[in-house]
Amino acid sequence: MADRPPRRRDLAAMITPLGRALTAAELPILRAHNLSMWGYIVLNALDGRPAPTQAALANAIGADKTRIIPILDDLQGQGLIHRDPDPADRRARLITITAQGSRLRTATQTAIQRNEERVLAHLPPSTRRTFLRALDVLSSLPPNEITGAG
Amino acid sequence: MADRPPRRRDLAAMITPLGRALTAAELPILRAHNLSMWGYIVLNALDGRPAPTQAALANAIGADKTRIIPILDDLQGQGLIHRDPDPADRRARLITITAQGSRLRTATQTAIQRNEERVLAHLPPSTRRTFLRALDVLSSLPPNEITGAG
Repeated sequence: MADRPPRRRDLAAMITPLGRALTAAELPILRAHNLSMWGYIVLNALDGRPAPTQAALANAIGADKTRIIPILDDLQGQGLIHRDPDPADRRARLITITAQGSRLRTATQTAIQRNEERVLAHLPPSTRRTFLRALDVLSSLPPNEITGAG
Repeated sequence: MADRPPRRRDLAAMITPLGRALTAAELPILRAHNLSMWGYIVLNALDGRPAPTQAALANAIGADKTRIIPILDDLQGQGLIHRDPDPADRRARLITITAQGSRLRTATQTAIQRNEERVLAHLPPSTRRTFLRALDVLSSLPPNEITGAG
């Protein structure tokens, strides 16, 4: 199984296990910061951005509206976010990250990206800048553009 | 949620959804070629390489030994592989891809990579070569090197 034919591997076959390993690398860091993966995703979606409604937030992170409620309850209980009535629509609530939430998000992301930088150090600096830029372009495409179903 | 702070996104947050969309793109192609995802992975692991034992094949594709049996039964039933006793160890069996299996693998991969090329066309040619090379390097690292658990 050692010698490989020179064909290129499928993108999916390269990307999927890499994503799995990078996600596994985040788990102990999230645990150390007392955050769930979804909690971290929510804080990332809130920090430095105008407060969204609960529905807009769910949509932005690709979670369904009922799934997001216990995550928000938990973050609010920890003092990481607060929820206030939307002045534009009294039935909706706006989610804001607290200063404590923002500090925790930054500390968690710093630790995650410190590990990622260690992984990226396997690439020469210029390759690595190009890689990150290309990944940013491809990962910003709508899923339909990738599946060809659009 | 429109304006983003200039911080870089986490690698995992870019790679995981991209991997999911690329895998979703493969499903209709595999279906059209009457192959399961695992069947395709097995054919890829066999084509152009010396015949492995069942155990070595399972190990190479990260499947467990019991899980691989029905996949091999199915591929053999379709005439895509055959299994012969290993002359070096009569209890072991060597797996070989058939000419038909090799043709089906090539046709499937050609269709999958045609879609991937369409996605990669969002990058300038030189960026795209660098991206593929970098991805090949990173995806060839042992998982322990990525999680930092090694």
